Amino acid sequence: MNAQSKSELDAAFAALADPTRRAILARLASGEATVLELARPFAMSQPAISKHLQVLERAGLISVGREAQRRPRRLEARPLAGATAWLEQYRQFWERRFQRLDVVLAGMKTKQKKRTRINSI
Amino acid sequence: MNAQSKSELDAAFAALADPTRRAILARLASGEATVLELARPFAMSQPAISKHLQVLERAGLISVGREAQRRPRRLEARPLAGATAWLEQYRQFWERRFQRLDVVLAGMKTKQKKRTRINSI
Repeated sequence: MNAQSKSELDAAFAALADPTRRAILARLASGEATVLELARPFAMSQPAISKHLQVLERAGLISVGREAQRRPRRLEARPLAGATAWLEQYRQFWERRFQRLDVVLAGMKTKQKKRTRINSI
Repeated sequence: MNAQSKSELDAAFAALADPTRRAILARLASGEATVLELARPFAMSQPAISKHLQVLERAGLISVGREAQRRPRRLEARPLAGATAWLEQYRQFWERRFQRLDVVLAGMKTKQKKRTRINSI
């Protein structure tokens, strides 16, 4: 991994570390929107939303459309794909860990059943 | 999504926004390690590494083993799974976007070939 994609990942993960910014991305996944449209569902001033949008834009997660009046924001694919790819490396790790936990829990349930049966005899 | 898992995601993404911390997680994916073992590959003091470990621990991404002397760090599955699940919602979005880009690029190549053929006649 080169230095550029390292700092791209830094910026993407840092931008994702906020619930308002994640909600903005969720909204933009269903289509582009203006700052006003994005601010509406949040109990936040437009400058506060604009700050969040700046963070997202700097991370490359959103871009600004060319329509001079509306300047709609749109979701960008690349940093999302990069962050997903990084986390994807660990899927095997946590899936294995959860499977082991499932085995332990299944074992506990079997023991519990046996105990219940013995107690009811 | 409840408030707890929201702040869990905040902490996980914030912790992932640093190349040293991501490298520490990558190392721990292959097995638990002490602070000394983790510090070795980095040109960093032990206190600097310890600070990174604290951030990872607070985010639940690592835990500290019980062996009093070694206190080995191990990777934890849950926050990684949570962050992956959040990003996974956007897979369709960026896969579609990349497919569209592929179609555009394929179209450009076809045009290029035609032009080359016309020029060579």
